[in-house]
Amino acid sequence: MSLLVLNEDELRQTVTLPEAITAVESAFTALAENRLHRPGHFTLDMPEGKSKVEVEGSYLSQIPYYIIRVNSSFHQAYQLDLPSPSGLTLVFEANSGHPIALLVDNGYISQLRAGAAGALAARYLANPTLNRVAVIGSGRQAYIQLKSLMMDRSIGLVSVWGRSPLHVDSYARRMVEDHDLNIEIAPSPEAAVRLADLVITATSSQEPLLKADWLKPGVHINAVGSNHPDKQELHVDVLQRAEVIIADKLDQGMAAGEIHHALNAGVITPQQIQGELGDLIKGKIPGRTHPDQITVADLTGVEVQDTVIATLAMEKALFLGLGQRVESPLL
Amino acid sequence: MSLLVLNEDELRQTVTLPEAITAVESAFTALAENRLHRPGHFTLDMPEGKSKVEVEGSYLSQIPYYIIRVNSSFHQAYQLDLPSPSGLTLVFEANSGHPIALLVDNGYISQLRAGAAGALAARYLANPTLNRVAVIGSGRQAYIQLKSLMMDRSIGLVSVWGRSPLHVDSYARRMVEDHDLNIEIAPSPEAAVRLADLVITATSSQEPLLKADWLKPGVHINAVGSNHPDKQELHVDVLQRAEVIIADKLDQGMAAGEIHHALNAGVITPQQIQGELGDLIKGKIPGRTHPDQITVADLTGVEVQDTVIATLAMEKALFLGLGQRVESPLL
Repeated sequence: MSLLVLNEDELRQTVTLPEAITAVESAFTALAENRLHRPGHFTLDMPEGKSKVEVEGSYLSQIPYYIIRVNSSFHQAYQLDLPSPSGLTLVFEANSGHPIALLVDNGYISQLRAGAAGALAARYLANPTLNRVAVIGSGRQAYIQLKSLMMDRSIGLVSVWGRSPLHVDSYARRMVEDHDLNIEIAPSPEAAVRLADLVITATSSQEPLLKADWLKPGVHINAVGSNHPDKQELHVDVLQRAEVIIADKLDQGMAAGEIHHALNAGVITPQQIQGELGDLIKGKIPGRTHPDQITVADLTGVEVQDTVIATLAMEKALFLGLGQRVESPLL
Repeated sequence: MSLLVLNEDELRQTVTLPEAITAVESAFTALAENRLHRPGHFTLDMPEGKSKVEVEGSYLSQIPYYIIRVNSSFHQAYQLDLPSPSGLTLVFEANSGHPIALLVDNGYISQLRAGAAGALAARYLANPTLNRVAVIGSGRQAYIQLKSLMMDRSIGLVSVWGRSPLHVDSYARRMVEDHDLNIEIAPSPEAAVRLADLVITATSSQEPLLKADWLKPGVHINAVGSNHPDKQELHVDVLQRAEVIIADKLDQGMAAGEIHHALNAGVITPQQIQGELGDLIKGKIPGRTHPDQITVADLTGVEVQDTVIATLAMEKALFLGLGQRVESPLL
């Protein structure tokens, strides 16, 4: 037997963004059909302070593998010039429990999964024509979110705002170089979103950056930054004004997402949350019913997204002959 | 950067049994000193039935690594002629969160850790002279337990009993071939333990195999098979009669070990459990105070044992140049 080891470089050659979007669509369908089996998870808080290690397991019926995923967030890593968070996925055979692949993705799978979820939320909730898209944030998430969206839609103009002018500048330059895209740098979040048909928030902000007053009727918002109760990107009045609110996973949104803050502030009730992305994909909930509605997708990230992407990456790597094989008669 | 991948074959060339015993001794000391940090764990129950995947994390202050360990118990694996349980350990740098080694040990680390704990329990609780040792069980645990004990003590005669005559026969033959050892096959558990100075129980029995009446004064018992509430090797009257009872980890013994059954049956009180193996090693509890006392070590297995063995294995592999390196500029 052998174990296939794939690094980030190789992973980037396996799954394309359109493939990731298709896979993640099937993941949310599986979630809506309760085909995700007993996922477990724990967090190892490192005593030094802000670092933490999240470990989660998932198994999806109809897929012959289960996954154990480790996400490490280490603030010190930045100082050591190493990527953070680093991500790592183990793939096991569901019928024997034997490890068949190790994906050392340094967080790339997490980016893919979030980008794909953003594209799907936009596909099902945003208006058909996107003249202007606002991007709040200029990091890796902001990059993959916009890139994923462009797989699905053509965009007239992108207006980007970020806290660091240097990062925003390099973000804009990279987007122009990689894609045939009109991009402008906005002087403020307000200026970025005022005329936007779709807004992506992809920061690690702990204070709300966007207010309801600034929003154009009919705008769709993909809020992807907040995955912890301490994080917040949308002022609660955004959710108060929104006609449609969906979560990728309701319990997570209520515990850690933008929904969490709006519920806590008492400006929305649980009944105002329409449902989950999987329900929307399956047509169980209506989503947008009028072009002027403001819609919000609260995307906190669900492990089933990793499961399908990791499985697909492994299968494509086997097909393409990528990765390194660790062989052993005993392995 | 690079990731070191070690398979079972290579692992067997790294850590010797005496080294494992020394490492596990330090692990129990660390446990007694509360140096084990916030271990997390979860179990992924596979929907097919009896298979399960246990994942646990541990970090020990003063060791620059943390560990995520996956133990998979798959009953189907036997049918596929694959080892079960299979074990796998990921080693990460504690200051950066980056993965540095993957140990695909197929359960070998679990064997080592248990063997070492057994040898230590015997070192601190058994009488100095071991004319006769009884082994109940003939599997891999029974093998490593006896082998570990022999690193510490010379043994006059070993009497082995197991449910399968075929397995017992091959166990005895292997022990004679590998070591200069007198071994006899006992017709019953009673015959095996009647004259024994030390008893090892290493089965997966769900019913008690040993009774208090059969025991010689002064015997020490290492009960290593029971790590689940459904498993039991000692009749509760053994613990009732024992003068000294220790656990590797008290809460585990009370939840899943032999102690669990004796407490449930009401034949002992929590006050009759002297303490933990780490307390014994550190001299915080007395252990055996008379040669005629019957002593019991309830060993359920603690993740800190894996942590030190995995760390040692990785460091020795690096020193010896063993294993396969998966290199990548991005890894």
